[in-house]
Amino acid sequence: MPPGLNMDNQKTDQESEDTSVVISEQVTLLQDTLVLTPEGVQKRSEQVAVEVPYTVALNDEEIGASMVLATDLEEFGAGFLFGQGYITEPGQVREVLVCPDGRISVHADVDEDMKPKEVIITSGCGGTGKISREMLEGAFDPLKECTITFPEIGEFIRQGLQSSPLGPATHCIHGCGFWSEGRLQAWYEDVGRHNAVDKVIGAILLGKFSPAGAIYTTGRLTSDMVLKCARIGIPIVMSRTSPSSLGLAIARRAGVTLAAYARPDRVNVFHGPERIVRNCED
Amino acid sequence: MPPGLNMDNQKTDQESEDTSVVISEQVTLLQDTLVLTPEGVQKRSEQVAVEVPYTVALNDEEIGASMVLATDLEEFGAGFLFGQGYITEPGQVREVLVCPDGRISVHADVDEDMKPKEVIITSGCGGTGKISREMLEGAFDPLKECTITFPEIGEFIRQGLQSSPLGPATHCIHGCGFWSEGRLQAWYEDVGRHNAVDKVIGAILLGKFSPAGAIYTTGRLTSDMVLKCARIGIPIVMSRTSPSSLGLAIARRAGVTLAAYARPDRVNVFHGPERIVRNCED
Repeated sequence: MPPGLNMDNQKTDQESEDTSVVISEQVTLLQDTLVLTPEGVQKRSEQVAVEVPYTVALNDEEIGASMVLATDLEEFGAGFLFGQGYITEPGQVREVLVCPDGRISVHADVDEDMKPKEVIITSGCGGTGKISREMLEGAFDPLKECTITFPEIGEFIRQGLQSSPLGPATHCIHGCGFWSEGRLQAWYEDVGRHNAVDKVIGAILLGKFSPAGAIYTTGRLTSDMVLKCARIGIPIVMSRTSPSSLGLAIARRAGVTLAAYARPDRVNVFHGPERIVRNCED
Repeated sequence: MPPGLNMDNQKTDQESEDTSVVISEQVTLLQDTLVLTPEGVQKRSEQVAVEVPYTVALNDEEIGASMVLATDLEEFGAGFLFGQGYITEPGQVREVLVCPDGRISVHADVDEDMKPKEVIITSGCGGTGKISREMLEGAFDPLKECTITFPEIGEFIRQGLQSSPLGPATHCIHGCGFWSEGRLQAWYEDVGRHNAVDKVIGAILLGKFSPAGAIYTTGRLTSDMVLKCARIGIPIVMSRTSPSSLGLAIARRAGVTLAAYARPDRVNVFHGPERIVRNCED
């Protein structure tokens, strides 16, 4: 955490001038609120998602700082550096250390000449809402082929959301998971839809699973979301909700299956329907 | 638009390698999709929100590039520079030119020494998901006082959402409006919740209305969202959905009323309920 970046989320004293942040693994806080209606006032207690600032360093050089949900920070650090264009493929990361002072220290074998030269702030949303020009332009590598069946889509979404109690509790959390080899490989959460995707991509970079599978996000598929998935080599990109025009354009260029409004028994496919297998044995 | 940043959203030819973007005022595109279910396939047409890249320049120096919905770009340019810490108050902006090559050129009277020194990428989401350390830290100016009544909240939300057909059409658009002096002053839309807020803040910077009023956003109130509103001096910040812990902490520090889950007849107030007037004449 950059020194001085302090903000105490735990104070309920409205007069408090204390602004120290506790960097902890705490992901929600209970807050007292007042529900106002024209008829009256009712006290209530709400769970609020905890954002904490973390800096990410690559080979001891600070690359950036981001607000995150303090879970799966090794994956986040690796995925963040991929999204920023510093790490490009699995096998480069040697070690990730999460330090109690709010710093994720990644050590990786990277080509110093490959540093991104220009970044574009992405629309919509972007915890790590920057992409390098190098990522946006240029040809895409061929994707490893895979398919997903409707029973698998159903299990993917059901198991993922069941393992994700923070979303319904806070209304402030995005989930993102990965399905391959017939099972849910991982499910990550963050305040940001970008950060949650970065955690999945970080897991691929850390060798936890191959990109030959399907990613599902509760967030919208804007340009950078699809771009990161395509660049790491994920052939099937699914969302609970919608794509943007540029997200779709990137899916077409990269040959990625883009399935929106994904539900256990229904997807709306904007590109690449052949990877979604309808008639299959349950 | 940075040269070479080209991506054609209008091609439906899946084999197309053309990647030129048309910078236009077009905000949605119709796309053919396939709805797949275990039982069969159905053709469908979906409206997709159009993201286009714009660069923002301040006094002929390029500050950043962002994907945006190509509406209200003068407001976006001014608000973007506020969010990045370059413009700090109304009256500084002299002229905003939106150029057909994808560039928003802002001319403003700014103190060259006041340039932000460090930026923090914000969580959750962030079309313009960066805030300067200067914005996050330091004392907040006193807010101009104002209140809002329940009939006003109802009109605010109803009129705003009625003037916003893109949201329900695309499921990919955030809305953000401003209410003061008993009426809806403005309603802006963007693919990004940050961008939509930036358009409201830009309108304040351009002198279209005073910050003494209420802002309503369809997006979550994470740290940077609340921070930008507090720094420009908006006393009442309302959202259709939830705040994060740090958004709430900033509201407390700044003395901003933070009303979540805002509906025409119900708000869940996390801080500063005194500005929401329940018992009023309709």
